[in-house]
Amino acid sequence: MATAEVKIPTHHKALVYDKPGEISTKIETIETPKPGVGEVLINLTHSGVCHSDQAVMCNRWKWLPAATQAGQVGGHEGVGTVVAFGDGAEASGLKIGQRVGIKWMAYACLNCLPCMSGRDACCTTGRISGFYTPGTFQEYALGPANYVTPIPDGLSSEMAAPLLCGGVTVYAGLKKTLAQPGDSIVIPGAGGGLGHLAVQIGKGMGYRILAIDNGDKEDFVKGLGAEAFFDISKYGRDAEGNKKLADDVKKASSEGMGAAGVVMCTASNAAYAQALSFLRFGGTLVCVGVPEGDPVPIGGADPASMLAQELRIVGSAVGNRKDAIETMNMAARGIVKTHFTLEPMSKLTETFEKMDQMKLQGRVVIDLSKE
Amino acid sequence: MATAEVKIPTHHKALVYDKPGEISTKIETIETPKPGVGEVLINLTHSGVCHSDQAVMCNRWKWLPAATQAGQVGGHEGVGTVVAFGDGAEASGLKIGQRVGIKWMAYACLNCLPCMSGRDACCTTGRISGFYTPGTFQEYALGPANYVTPIPDGLSSEMAAPLLCGGVTVYAGLKKTLAQPGDSIVIPGAGGGLGHLAVQIGKGMGYRILAIDNGDKEDFVKGLGAEAFFDISKYGRDAEGNKKLADDVKKASSEGMGAAGVVMCTASNAAYAQALSFLRFGGTLVCVGVPEGDPVPIGGADPASMLAQELRIVGSAVGNRKDAIETMNMAARGIVKTHFTLEPMSKLTETFEKMDQMKLQGRVVIDLSKE
Amino acid sequence: MATAEVKIPTHHKALVYDKPGEISTKIETIETPKPGVGEVLINLTHSGVCHSDQAVMCNRWKWLPAATQAGQVGGHEGVGTVVAFGDGAEASGLKIGQRVGIKWMAYACLNCLPCMSGRDACCTTGRISGFYTPGTFQEYALGPANYVTPIPDGLSSEMAAPLLCGGVTVYAGLKKTLAQPGDSIVIPGAGGGLGHLAVQIGKGMGYRILAIDNGDKEDFVKGLGAEAFFDISKYGRDAEGNKKLADDVKKASSEGMGAAGVVMCTASNAAYAQALSFLRFGGTLVCVGVPEGDPVPIGGADPASMLAQELRIVGSAVGNRKDAIETMNMAARGIVKTHFTLEPMSKLTETFEKMDQMKLQGRVVIDLSKE
Amino acid sequence: MATAEVKIPTHHKALVYDKPGEISTKIETIETPKPGVGEVLINLTHSGVCHSDQAVMCNRWKWLPAATQAGQVGGHEGVGTVVAFGDGAEASGLKIGQRVGIKWMAYACLNCLPCMSGRDACCTTGRISGFYTPGTFQEYALGPANYVTPIPDGLSSEMAAPLLCGGVTVYAGLKKTLAQPGDSIVIPGAGGGLGHLAVQIGKGMGYRILAIDNGDKEDFVKGLGAEAFFDISKYGRDAEGNKKLADDVKKASSEGMGAAGVVMCTASNAAYAQALSFLRFGGTLVCVGVPEGDPVPIGGADPASMLAQELRIVGSAVGNRKDAIETMNMAARGIVKTHFTLEPMSKLTETFEKMDQMKLQGRVVIDLSKE
Repeated sequence: MATAEVKIPTHHKALVYDKPGEISTKIETIETPKPGVGEVLINLTHSGVCHSDQAVMCNRWKWLPAATQAGQVGGHEGVGTVVAFGDGAEASGLKIGQRVGIKWMAYACLNCLPCMSGRDACCTTGRISGFYTPGTFQEYALGPANYVTPIPDGLSSEMAAPLLCGGVTVYAGLKKTLAQPGDSIVIPGAGGGLGHLAVQIGKGMGYRILAIDNGDKEDFVKGLGAEAFFDISKYGRDAEGNKKLADDVKKASSEGMGAAGVVMCTASNAAYAQALSFLRFGGTLVCVGVPEGDPVPIGGADPASMLAQELRIVGSAVGNRKDAIETMNMAARGIVKTHFTLEPMSKLTETFEKMDQMKLQGRVVIDLSKE
Repeated sequence: MATAEVKIPTHHKALVYDKPGEISTKIETIETPKPGVGEVLINLTHSGVCHSDQAVMCNRWKWLPAATQAGQVGGHEGVGTVVAFGDGAEASGLKIGQRVGIKWMAYACLNCLPCMSGRDACCTTGRISGFYTPGTFQEYALGPANYVTPIPDGLSSEMAAPLLCGGVTVYAGLKKTLAQPGDSIVIPGAGGGLGHLAVQIGKGMGYRILAIDNGDKEDFVKGLGAEAFFDISKYGRDAEGNKKLADDVKKASSEGMGAAGVVMCTASNAAYAQALSFLRFGGTLVCVGVPEGDPVPIGGADPASMLAQELRIVGSAVGNRKDAIETMNMAARGIVKTHFTLEPMSKLTETFEKMDQMKLQGRVVIDLSKE
Repeated sequence: MATAEVKIPTHHKALVYDKPGEISTKIETIETPKPGVGEVLINLTHSGVCHSDQAVMCNRWKWLPAATQAGQVGGHEGVGTVVAFGDGAEASGLKIGQRVGIKWMAYACLNCLPCMSGRDACCTTGRISGFYTPGTFQEYALGPANYVTPIPDGLSSEMAAPLLCGGVTVYAGLKKTLAQPGDSIVIPGAGGGLGHLAVQIGKGMGYRILAIDNGDKEDFVKGLGAEAFFDISKYGRDAEGNKKLADDVKKASSEGMGAAGVVMCTASNAAYAQALSFLRFGGTLVCVGVPEGDPVPIGGADPASMLAQELRIVGSAVGNRKDAIETMNMAARGIVKTHFTLEPMSKLTETFEKMDQMKLQGRVVIDLSKE
Repeated sequence: MATAEVKIPTHHKALVYDKPGEISTKIETIETPKPGVGEVLINLTHSGVCHSDQAVMCNRWKWLPAATQAGQVGGHEGVGTVVAFGDGAEASGLKIGQRVGIKWMAYACLNCLPCMSGRDACCTTGRISGFYTPGTFQEYALGPANYVTPIPDGLSSEMAAPLLCGGVTVYAGLKKTLAQPGDSIVIPGAGGGLGHLAVQIGKGMGYRILAIDNGDKEDFVKGLGAEAFFDISKYGRDAEGNKKLADDVKKASSEGMGAAGVVMCTASNAAYAQALSFLRFGGTLVCVGVPEGDPVPIGGADPASMLAQELRIVGSAVGNRKDAIETMNMAARGIVKTHFTLEPMSKLTETFEKMDQMKLQGRVVIDLSKE
């Protein structure tokens, strides 16, 4: 094991889910692990806080294979510096002191068919950060040397952290629309955690963004580069309201025939049920947000409707390594910025409570150097 | 108007839907039209009989914009020879006496965005053969010179007719899987009108075909080139039966991870609800068959399930001009054959009755030269 | 023939090549044609002047199948309004008074395999505007109703005219790089007629533009959005200079490995011979500019070099109808602007002379309403 | 280090290039290495003999970065069984006793941008088997656990060995044509080592194969599935002969417009200079064979010719891991067979001599268990 000049402690502080099923986290002191074969030890400085963390902590996602265990260190948007190499890890080309990030997929084997196909999310032995694998709400974490994401110079760690999850996810989703520059893309939930990144990244990819959210987000979202904004609260959720919204979206779209893609950045079944009506012939709905509760088939996704306009629906879990690198590059170039607040470790529970009450403005990033 | 040496009659025989909503057709003598600008007059010799004709005649498809009118000449799988040109039609390069075909899309403008994108089915001013446009159950019909399908030498007209619909449709659907040679493709309804063509064409494209149908079709379907056959009647339609079938399909698939695509050649909601479970990561369900009755969202197509394996669902209406030409070429090379019976015009009603009673074996082609 | 309220003259003014092989044009009064089947008559108001016109006039392109005839009306970047319909042309949806454009391909059949594949340039019966088909240097011209390019509101005719050629051409070329947003694209000749459009359009597609030209173009080109500029005059044309330039381009590229694409906007064999050295693994050189004189194989395009980095070379002639519409839309959105000067018809010869002496700054557009 | 029950010797027999620059190999006894981190030790049983081995041994490829060293163990088409794991290598899922193969790229990092893009051949730290990395002409060799190719049951090791190089290479090349099933593909050198595999694999991918070679190969090549055969010796190598051959190839192609692709399986500059003339609009020449001697730009690859038909030239070095797996699967299904002779180790020099004298019929596979 090659290590940095910096002294690696025997123990470090970590935030654990002490009562899975409830919103509750606790700072504990745990043993600092040694990197195994092919692994690096990372001194994390920042971790974003994501809705997915909350879903994991509270056991709200029924599609996960098991309940979360007490003592789980959560978090999956971490940035820090490499401080030690396990055997063989130096072959990766990483350097001691280099900044790297850990994302939702903490590990993918790179050796199974899904990995070879660039679908890390479907890795047959993949591991999720903060779910049965220690996450990023701690001072030190391990990561595979050939799977952590290098952070480019000129991109701050606190800015990078939330992008490793939301940014990479929406970027991968936008790609899956197969739309081309100049095409219109609808972003439902444009003012939210995922949505505000999708608006910026989508614009940087040359798309024309049609944003949907509540009216109080209008100025914010237009400031990010959306070409048109639709205040969802002004349309009823009934058939008439849906039709009116679909008509307005189509009218605003390139060529007036509907959008080439919808990248769903909210997690409501009602929003999904509207999405296909925004599309033009051959258009693509990309599923990104995952509704809580029992699974409900996407409204309107019946064979006759899919055929009539040759529509496509695509599931997009998370981005792969290449997507992560490309997203970091876009952020380093200033294409996309996250709106976030820095908080010390002790504020994590409160952050989750505010998130639960929908009171959070922008993203929260935990400064792991502050208790 | 340039015409052939052959004498074009003033009137000709046509089969019309005399009582739309019911199974009933009647031979009438109608006026032979003159080709308009850009049109050719075709002396039809053969027309296939398709389930879609029946759905139109009986008003069974709720997604069609209107009820069928009495006196409608049905049919959309016609083959014949060019006998006269309208103004400008000769520029197409067609020759008097050349064999051409008419398919489901009788006309597409080639000038709207969907047409420019190769999506004829979504043409903003497209016309369907046999639905508010006179169809192919008649001795003479008009077609746009730049939209009818040339029939290659070495392919008989009676063989070509049904391929213009079912063959082109499944070929376009198979393409939309985006699978590559060597990948496994599941064909539910493999022994049916669409399915038996999909098995042959899919094999010709280098796919490994996993066929699903009732046991009495097993020998027939395997003879067409399917690599494995699953007798749907041996699995229950309950959760357990579905799981067992999905497991067996996966086991038989290339790499044992599931199929790269499912091309749905039956039209039942129950079959659709199984389809996603046959797929491997990134796999594609192509909707081809359209269930009758009220539209039902595809079972299992909820966002979480779509995400977990990054699945895709794609609607495929019909093929475009290029797909039609390529399908005819495959048939001329012997890659795909239709199993059909030749009948005179007077047998059309009886044919529809048998079709309704599920007593039809293979396809029926009407010999339009025989009353 | 349906016509506008506007009075269509029996004769109109046209600029003809009176001495093909030399730079010489002459205003003549010629008969105004009547639109044939499927055609529209267009009252042209503006036509751009392109290097290709000069090459045709002077018989400089050896790959053209024949010498230019005396009396040829040149020009292929025309914009005007529809004033009359030939038989069947109204089916296109065009309206009297609507603005439309004529481009290099004046006519493509839309019915041959190349046309069905979106490769209008390879149409087996295509016609080139201003070469054996009357061009756009005249007050009235014919065009196929389903092939002329609609000009969107908000885009002036004088701005649209040159984009119909250069803009569409570089847009189609940029697409053929298969690069994705964030990738680096090299534009040799970035300050020229094609190049300055490629810089702007490429940027609008999300690419990072590395521009090459003479130093006096640096400010202009950077102002258009290029990320880096290389003054070709500062590098020698010898092996050492080439290597230094290639090294510098690579250093400036995304990830420092070389560009994903080169879109060649100059027409010199020496520039082509450098291009492959700018590329990263899997990168694409798109041939757009055509050198005059005898054909010379692209320097460096030997099998071993192509293999080592799995490079690609692609020929891109002109864009198709869809490319033209998309380019016009980009221009209407302000993504791309042409730098041009308006001149009356009588200045065409002088314009070609300046072009020949390399004294032209930006594009010249002929105002066809002024003699 | 986990090892098999089988006893691993301290030393083993290897064939080395004792006089690089000449055709000469010698059996030596060398130390058996221990697998490092992430590596497996493989007991090789078979190795194919390839023209590339000869080029390396004799220093005939000028594009290689260095001269071959005396004592180099050559070979890059090896198959054997895993007998020991280095640290961390078991995570790959491989088992002791499992058959695996080593190919041209002995090692790719899977971590650089080319690797992430599926371009193993361009790996920034890749290693070539038998060139500065011990090759497969020996009883024991090391390989990265996540990079060796699993050999499926039902495919013999002697059959698999040559496919790991030639089979994978032509498969990757065929893919790069971007042709679709039913398209015509020209294979120059169809009866040779690469060519006879390309004919079979291409046919299995649904392509229609147009084969070019000397007349004495005609029966052999047609037996492999070629649709047409052109005896190159019957056409002169002059302009007239070239034109006649191009005309005949076009006539035989699907639609008569030329082939969609040429996969160049010979290594002569003269053959390359013919290739573009075989293509239809938008067609692709894939460079696979590498001519010896100084690099010569591909004849006919000038910008004007590339543009006129929008042609493409693509370099294809070798396949990646996924290509290798897919090729092995095709072979296990009987789609492709190699024609080979088994020889003991002592016959390697003689094999190279015959190869040099063009006297080799089919492939030679060395049985590494026989001295």
